[in-house]
Amino acid sequence: MAREAGEAGPIRHGGDLGEARRLFPDAPEPWIDLSTGINPIPYPCPALEASHFQRLPAAGDLRALEAAAAAAYGAPGAGHVAAAPGTQALIDLLPRLRGPGRVAVVGPTYAEHAAAWRRGGHAVATVPDLGEAAAADVAVVVNPNNPDGRTWTRPALADAARALAARGGWLVVDEAFADLEPVESLCAAPPAGAVVLRSFGKTYGLAGIRLGFAVAAPPAADAIRAALGPWAVSGPALAVGRVALADAAWRREAAAARGRDAARLDALIAAAGGRLVGGTRLFRTADFPDAASLFGRLGRAGLYVRRFEAAPRRLRFGLPGTGAAWARLARALA
Amino acid sequence: MAREAGEAGPIRHGGDLGEARRLFPDAPEPWIDLSTGINPIPYPCPALEASHFQRLPAAGDLRALEAAAAAAYGAPGAGHVAAAPGTQALIDLLPRLRGPGRVAVVGPTYAEHAAAWRRGGHAVATVPDLGEAAAADVAVVVNPNNPDGRTWTRPALADAARALAARGGWLVVDEAFADLEPVESLCAAPPAGAVVLRSFGKTYGLAGIRLGFAVAAPPAADAIRAALGPWAVSGPALAVGRVALADAAWRREAAAARGRDAARLDALIAAAGGRLVGGTRLFRTADFPDAASLFGRLGRAGLYVRRFEAAPRRLRFGLPGTGAAWARLARALA
Repeated sequence: MAREAGEAGPIRHGGDLGEARRLFPDAPEPWIDLSTGINPIPYPCPALEASHFQRLPAAGDLRALEAAAAAAYGAPGAGHVAAAPGTQALIDLLPRLRGPGRVAVVGPTYAEHAAAWRRGGHAVATVPDLGEAAAADVAVVVNPNNPDGRTWTRPALADAARALAARGGWLVVDEAFADLEPVESLCAAPPAGAVVLRSFGKTYGLAGIRLGFAVAAPPAADAIRAALGPWAVSGPALAVGRVALADAAWRREAAAARGRDAARLDALIAAAGGRLVGGTRLFRTADFPDAASLFGRLGRAGLYVRRFEAAPRRLRFGLPGTGAAWARLARALA
Repeated sequence: MAREAGEAGPIRHGGDLGEARRLFPDAPEPWIDLSTGINPIPYPCPALEASHFQRLPAAGDLRALEAAAAAAYGAPGAGHVAAAPGTQALIDLLPRLRGPGRVAVVGPTYAEHAAAWRRGGHAVATVPDLGEAAAADVAVVVNPNNPDGRTWTRPALADAARALAARGGWLVVDEAFADLEPVESLCAAPPAGAVVLRSFGKTYGLAGIRLGFAVAAPPAADAIRAALGPWAVSGPALAVGRVALADAAWRREAAAARGRDAARLDALIAAAGGRLVGGTRLFRTADFPDAASLFGRLGRAGLYVRRFEAAPRRLRFGLPGTGAAWARLARALA
């Protein structure tokens, strides 16, 4: 039997330099963390009043945040949006909102989906495409997919949602990396049975504040909001999220700038003998003849990238955020 | 049939001035919010580096926070502590970690406990004391109780935990208001089957950052930590919590100062004809011959206190935080 991510032991994530320092104790500091798909040029955080830290988050402020998210994602309105303390909180919550069933995750993909449904007592299989997934009780697809950038069309997703909903099932579409992409989002008119996930921290480079959204038809959005309970989102996240999501100009400029960065990264990868598998404007995934040795070379240079236990030739690169980081990466890949 | 809090419609909470402004549109601004039990003199927040907002919270930082919480609460160690984005997140999570059963909440008490267990599919009854509660599958007790300040002894709690654990049950002890009180906490040696909840935001006056803890024997703490998933606690909460929880001197001074405030508030309440029911150093609860009219008088003066649908003679007062707030309250109660 194939060993699946999440079945044996904890999932290895990007973004934790403690792991990098243990692996490469002699690497130069500060480390350059390319192990995530978080935008390295963060949204310029507005100054936060002390009251955001001190007061219980108010219901009206939560509603205003959900309205800003609806506008940013093109959803019909605040009633279609449930704000959570990070998309991961939603990934952990959804499996507890229905009785045990058969879950098909279109993969390989982000390992936390399968792990969370298993923790919730469901039987989880990884399937190669959406057609097979729609035969389960719940199908999960990441669009665009992490780490390979694969995408699905809106009609294909809507068909799957319809087939699942007809039997009381769900289609979970994780659009964590959709903000800066020309992807066919389901947010504009989420069909019954579909739950779309959107991540705030990745696009805005503010992963520490913990903010993510579920977009769904109002009965499902209401159920998720109720299950999250009051005050799920912190005061700082409410304040920053509301301002950032309303800033369409920043998002357009970020999409253009990260697109240029992604092309620049592709050129470095190609020059180093990598074969591009795919990606998004926030990460690039490539296969290398000797990925293990390249991972070691990068680590000793203080560059932490993402590797994959199930795909030993594969590495994923986040975007460097400074001229010095680009230069160090170019030297290590040369 | 008696109508129970949480059974019909949304629970009315303190801390949301939107509600106060709707009820009393002509009240003077700024409102003085006495509707919560949140410390009005907040812990002086350390300046936060941008990285706390930008980076994914690291596993090592979470562990350090849990160690600081263990030391502050007198728990055996970090392995006994699971950090969450607010105690409410734990109140919502626990009912989803076991199959439907019979839950006894010792009450009247904080309404979210019964509501969360009902949302999780359990049969919930409110019982007057711990002895009856121990016959259920799960017993919930708030120590000291909100809003009446009632307390339970450690031997009584340990007995109940033992009886419940013998049948695979749980005792949930919500010690949200225990930090500044001489209460008999279960944190030092949580017995098998006991889950203790501790709130950060109330004691430290930082309810907006969303931070709370479960303290339990390691297998239960591990299960809660796993169910919360990675990155449940935000970077700002990790940073502020770690510093504040390590500051035992601040906590001692806060307990003394809020004790003096509580005595001062009791004198105002008594002079206004109130009969003190009980409370903690962060709130005082009293019965009044005409509580409805007093609630209106306070509201028109821009003072928002907590009332109780099931106890129409009862009001709960949080502590004023400034000389002007004390003066306005004294005038309105005179």
